[in-house]
Amino acid sequence: MALIILAHPNYEKSTSNKTIIEALEKSSLDIKIRNLAALYPDYKIDVKAEQEALLRHENIIFQYPFYWYNMPAILKLWFDVVFEYQFAYGSKGDKLKDKNFIASFTVGAPEKEYNTLGEHHFRVMEFCKNLEQTAYYAKMHFINPVYSFGNSLNAGMAPEEVKQNAGFHAKKLIEVVKRLEAPLVS
Amino acid sequence: MALIILAHPNYEKSTSNKTIIEALEKSSLDIKIRNLAALYPDYKIDVKAEQEALLRHENIIFQYPFYWYNMPAILKLWFDVVFEYQFAYGSKGDKLKDKNFIASFTVGAPEKEYNTLGEHHFRVMEFCKNLEQTAYYAKMHFINPVYSFGNSLNAGMAPEEVKQNAGFHAKKLIEVVKRLEAPLVS
Repeated sequence: MALIILAHPNYEKSTSNKTIIEALEKSSLDIKIRNLAALYPDYKIDVKAEQEALLRHENIIFQYPFYWYNMPAILKLWFDVVFEYQFAYGSKGDKLKDKNFIASFTVGAPEKEYNTLGEHHFRVMEFCKNLEQTAYYAKMHFINPVYSFGNSLNAGMAPEEVKQNAGFHAKKLIEVVKRLEAPLVS
Repeated sequence: MALIILAHPNYEKSTSNKTIIEALEKSSLDIKIRNLAALYPDYKIDVKAEQEALLRHENIIFQYPFYWYNMPAILKLWFDVVFEYQFAYGSKGDKLKDKNFIASFTVGAPEKEYNTLGEHHFRVMEFCKNLEQTAYYAKMHFINPVYSFGNSLNAGMAPEEVKQNAGFHAKKLIEVVKRLEAPLVS
């Protein structure tokens, strides 16, 4: 079973994140979704409930749009309050040990802009060190993030194109999770 | 005049951020502080007020503790809502052009842990690409961040040591801002 931490401040109006979530729901994966913005419109996160959900799952997927080369604020708050001392780290903080940390995010601009000479100057993975080290510090397995480009209607993409990109993204994500769930063949 | 965007969820109980802010207040710098957590305990940021404060200043300092290799959630939310389309970016989004972007943050652990073989595996600057590119995208000047290590009482540092580190940090920050404010000698 996979836990989806959905962190989109405006999910109902999203195209790509919604397409991805719908594809996950239609897939054969057994998933449980926690929609943070819907659960906590006042930013008062129920730490116990979030920690208990984490304890019940081995694959933790963070689904969100890339905002300012980073995660949305509601997800940052989630890490700040849920990944507590003696839960996620510290001498007894091994509750997340060996769980899989899978970031899955949608990037508005096209891929060519995420290059040294492009508008955004850095490769996407250069913005992911904080995710990677957060996983390590919580003793989790950092799985290579799944991300896709050209997901913003604002950036001039056609709705059909955005949906198609999101569809490919979902397919990739589902494959990653299935591979993690597959029993090792001896 | 410098604008300080103070983003500490628990400022009253902080040692190092408080020491730094107090040193700034005692310095000869002309500063205006916006304490985000105090202004917006409900995370409902007044976008207009924040944008107007930005317009009145050339040096923008972000003062915060480093949480999970990143900024606290309240500051991330501030960027997400204040750095709007056609304000900070977009065809007419030049309102922040040529202002200085100065991140100033305190890191809990000692410096030796922020190395490939240390507990935190990466150098601090490797976690700063999102700040750097945020500045570029808003047409601001990215000033090398000011940061200091060993700022956490939780990490076993003595209070006097933490205060001393914060004092050095403040001194460095004040020098950076003074240099930016100094008129160019022709």
